[in-house]
Formats: sequence, structure tokens, C-alpha cells
Amino acid sequence: MCQLLGMNCNVPTDICFSFEGFHVRGGLTDHHRDGWGIAFFEGPGCRVFLDSKATIESPVAELVRRYPIRSKNVIAHIRKATQGVIALENCHPFQRELWGRYWIFAHNGNLEGFEPPVDGFLPVGQTDSERAFCLIMSQLRDRFPQGHPGNEALFRALGEISCAVAAHGLFNFLLSNGEVLFAHCSNNLHYLVRKAPFGPAHLIDQDLSMDFSQVAQADDQVAVIASFPLTDNEPWTAMPPGQLLMFREGEPVAALQCRRR
Amino acid sequence: MCQLLGMNCNVPTDICFSFEGFHVRGGLTDHHRDGWGIAFFEGPGCRVFLDSKATIESPVAELVRRYPIRSKNVIAHIRKATQGVIALENCHPFQRELWGRYWIFAHNGNLEGFEPPVDGFLPVGQTDSERAFCLIMSQLRDRFPQGHPGNEALFRALGEISCAVAAHGLFNFLLSNGEVLFAHCSNNLHYLVRKAPFGPAHLIDQDLSMDFSQVAQADDQVAVIASFPLTDNEPWTAMPPGQLLMFREGEPVAALQCRRR
Repeated sequence: MCQLLGMNCNVPTDICFSFEGFHVRGGLTDHHRDGWGIAFFEGPGCRVFLDSKATIESPVAELVRRYPIRSKNVIAHIRKATQGVIALENCHPFQRELWGRYWIFAHNGNLEGFEPPVDGFLPVGQTDSERAFCLIMSQLRDRFPQGHPGNEALFRALGEISCAVAAHGLFNFLLSNGEVLFAHCSNNLHYLVRKAPFGPAHLIDQDLSMDFSQVAQADDQVAVIASFPLTDNEPWTAMPPGQLLMFREGEPVAALQCRRR
Repeated sequence: MCQLLGMNCNVPTDICFSFEGFHVRGGLTDHHRDGWGIAFFEGPGCRVFLDSKATIESPVAELVRRYPIRSKNVIAHIRKATQGVIALENCHPFQRELWGRYWIFAHNGNLEGFEPPVDGFLPVGQTDSERAFCLIMSQLRDRFPQGHPGNEALFRALGEISCAVAAHGLFNFLLSNGEVLFAHCSNNLHYLVRKAPFGPAHLIDQDLSMDFSQVAQADDQVAVIASFPLTDNEPWTAMPPGQLLMFREGEPVAALQCRRR
């Protein structure tokens, strides 16, 4: 199993504080050492930093810790290999282009015997995760051949696709097109919205605190999504199994629930 | 106009020496300050580092200088904006997936009034360069719907597409799928093959030398491709206008020439 971290904001924000707690799960406070990655949207552009080393030993992670990149949508992943060798091509997040936008995807879980027919979007590596991402991209393209259908229609379609894929196993994922961020929970996914009145936050994985009332502006709104809570003094919400959320401008704006099987 | 740098090798090699000379062209020895990027293939995987800062001020360039990533195919680009704003989405190299492989592209030149119809591969930014890359990807996919046709057929198809695009202006480009590297010259592109017997190399842009006889193995073979020679004591070959080369395992293995118009 892997560790997911996502951030969706109403103003470009750096993820340094959350990443400080998250990155030590890649080999120190947790045993996920099989590579990692983080993607930052900056407007329509996107940059993805990947490394097949453990985050705690990665020079690229060191760069991300020291270089505060401001972004409205971030997705990060620390890998514990289940399917696919330990290699760069199997590090999340994965990136594809659809409708003239970049899409970024990271997955925690395991999809057993999941070999869907894919057309147009093909996996480069060997993971179930990249296969699932390619299936999502193919199905969205096929359902909306005219281009991006708007967020509501996109969300409904993604809900149907997610529920179908989740029938194959554990499918916690984060997906973003740079405007909205989607989070689907099979078993472990938690989120938090930071907004005024801001207060102090204290990390679980390191003894480090940040008083957001000193750094945030009154209108700032930031949603942080993670496999497990990153702080021990803030009100994290556990997503129920089968839930898909759409985050926009720093808060959840829509929810769907897969039917129980 | 921009600066291109490519490397194609028979064993994974770091590009640190060449990058040492190249990166100072991003704001110091040359005036290209509008962003930069570098892509490293590692097996089928690929990582792309992008920054909209000048290379000489970029923390990401500092990482690339200090972290010797070994790769058989590298493409780097320093941008001097002609079309498109200074922003991450317009930084080269660009990446897409086709036939289950990543493809990396960077362009130097300017294509006037180049607005081809594209289908399936759409640009995210506003550059002529990304439009040309999307056209190449679309046309390759359409010509070979069954998948990768083999390097020879791929090379012939790319020759036809390149000549057609080059009719719109200056079209120096580097393109790689992680196995082979293609270089097309409109006006400025030079290459060099380093192989035994190895000797010393001295950079043009910095007073820095490297004696490759001390670091290279007998069978190593490395092709370096750049807009302008990077060293002043090695036999660089100027590509003639209209030439497309295919590099494989550290040497040019095939050449095509556009007909003069």
C-alpha cells in the first residue's frame, strides 16, 4: 500500500508544511521506500518530480522541501510496490493530456486481475494504477468527444467509472486537471479544510508546528487530502468507503457514493 | 530563438559536464531567460524537470547539476520566448504518450502562421513548438494505428512530417522515445560522438575541462547534439539544413534530407 497527499486551494499555496510530515513516511515513520513523486499545477502547466529512491534519501525530495512552489492543485504519492517493479516508470503520479489539459493521477490500493481493454491511452509501466488511469482517460474521452463537458458532467461520469473500477479491489485515488481535484476513497482517505479563523497545526510524523494565523490571508482556503491525517490537532474528516469528492477552490463542492454491492 | 541540448548513449551516462556549459547560456553567456527544461529517460520511464526561471537562477537547474542522473536519452532546452507567454505550460521539453511509450520533444526556431488541425493530441500552452509536436504525434498515430512500426519505418515517416512542418519556418528539433533520438536541423544544430580513444574536452562557456579517458569505459559511445558546439577542442559536425538524423546507441545510424524548395 502507498501513501497519498493532495492539496486543492483557492490561491496558489506552497505545500511545504504538509510535505514535511508526508515525506518521512517514505522510509522513516513508515516503510514505503519504493519511489515517490509529486505534481504541481501552475496555471495550465504542470511539473512532475519523480524519483525511484525513498523520499527520505531523495535529492529531488530535498529540492521540493527547500523550493516553495506555489500551486492550486498538488498531488503526491509515496510507493510501496504491489504490482510492477521498482522503477521510474512505475512511480506515481502519472500524467496524460486530454482535451488540451494535463491530468495527474495517483493511486493507493490494489486492483486484482484488472486488465481492462484500453484504447488510445496506454500504460508505459506495469502497475494496476496506471492501467486504471488510462481507462479513466479513455472513457472520459469516449463519453465526451467534443471536449471538456463542464465539471458537473465530468464528476458524474467519473463517479460511474470509479465505482466500476473499485469493484476490482482497493481504489483510493487522487485525480486533478489543474482546476478541480477528485478524491475517491475505498478504505483510507482523509481530508481537512483550512480557512479562517486559522490556528496552529502540529504534525504527527515530526515534532513541527505551524501557526497558520501568522501566514495565511483572511480569504485563503486550502483543502488537504491524505491517506491518513498529517496533523494531530485539526479536525480531519474520514471519507466513507465508496465516496468520490470533487474539490474546487479549497473545499469539497460535490459528493457521490457508490452503491454497496 | 532557443538553445537545444540532446544526448544519446549506448550505456546510461550522466550529462553533468555538458549541462555545466549549457546551463549558463540561460542568462549568463547567452540571453535566453524565459524558462528551461530537461528530460531524462530511465528505461521506459521518463522524468522531466521544468522551470519558468532562467537556468542560472533556477533551484531545479542546481539540482540537475548536483544529482548525476544516468540516462541513455536526454533532451534539454533553454527558452527565448517567440510565441506564447513566459509560463510553465510553454517550457520545453514537452511530453506525450503514444503506443505505450513516452515521447519527449524540444524545438528551436519559429513557425509562422502554423495552426495545423490536430486530433487527439492537443497543445496545453500557446507555442508553435507544442503545436508541431502534437501534429507529429497525431500523424505518427494515424500512419501506424497498429503501434510502433519499427525504427526504420518510423524514421521515414518522421522525415516526411518534418520536411512538411519545416516549410513553415525554422524547425530545429530533438525528439526521443527513450530508445532512439531524432534531430532535425533547419539552421543551427551540431553533434559530436565521443568514443575511444577518449581525450580531454574543454567547455566554451566556462573554463572547465574533463578528461574522458579517465572516466569513460572502452566501449562507451555518447552522441551529444547542441544548437552550437559546447566544447572548443572536439570535432563537432554541423548538420546541413534540412537534415534529419536518427541516433541510436550513441551514434547517428540513419540520415534523411528534405528536398530543397
